[in-house]
Amino acid sequence: MREAIKQARKAEGKEEIPVGAVVALNGKIIAKAHNKKEKTKNSLNHAEILAMNKACKKLGQKYLDGCEVYVTLEPCAMCAGAMLNYRIKRLYFGAWEPKTGCAGSLYNLLTDKRFNHRVEVAGGILEEECALMLKNFFAQRRKKERS
Amino acid sequence: MREAIKQARKAEGKEEIPVGAVVALNGKIIAKAHNKKEKTKNSLNHAEILAMNKACKKLGQKYLDGCEVYVTLEPCAMCAGAMLNYRIKRLYFGAWEPKTGCAGSLYNLLTDKRFNHRVEVAGGILEEECALMLKNFFAQRRKKERS
Repeated sequence: MREAIKQARKAEGKEEIPVGAVVALNGKIIAKAHNKKEKTKNSLNHAEILAMNKACKKLGQKYLDGCEVYVTLEPCAMCAGAMLNYRIKRLYFGAWEPKTGCAGSLYNLLTDKRFNHRVEVAGGILEEECALMLKNFFAQRRKKERS
Repeated sequence: MREAIKQARKAEGKEEIPVGAVVALNGKIIAKAHNKKEKTKNSLNHAEILAMNKACKKLGQKYLDGCEVYVTLEPCAMCAGAMLNYRIKRLYFGAWEPKTGCAGSLYNLLTDKRFNHRVEVAGGILEEECALMLKNFFAQRRKKERS
């Protein structure tokens, strides 16, 4: 999660919402990314999607069996759905996202037994640090908008 | 939907699950794609994701405001989530997908008022044709596996 936070800080410096993600296999980081929605003008480019896509290309296989995802914010429906499709083994996330979160807040898509894959989920890892980063970012943005 | 079916038929010929998608703006097709999960060895590459990603790049904007998506199969959680993120206006889909569908079957993510965007949904458009294509594909695949 430390590395995911480091990734998020990179986003922060580029006026992106500071979210970072890392994919690990057998305890080793194989891909990392930060949110690039603004830079790429593309709503698909959440940190988790970019990190999983990189991991997928690196491993050269359509599923990320056995892989773990670390992300600083609870995933949205798209990212949670992508974790199911990629057959991610375990998800660790930092801050809870009550407005869009689909790994426990609004839905828990990842543990729904009706899907043909489930992802183990642990939320609230280094929560305060991850949440504070987002809080400061939005406070800063509001301040800029006002001035 | 006719063009989405045409796209799906392209996938069929390449041993991909035959799903096709089209993005339209003001009644004009701006992007089309078919499922490329096998070819690209990437679980992200569902027809809808590829078509919306193309549309996004074509328009040069992070949201696809006012756009409509036509897809031959009910979207999964990832694709439905991407439609929310891209702020798609309306979704038309063909066959229902009782195992993974998130636009009415297992969930209806697209009309959930807790999200900050909603997508209008019409399912079952040219349903028989879309479903038959999938049914034939899987029957063919089972036959090959057995022989």
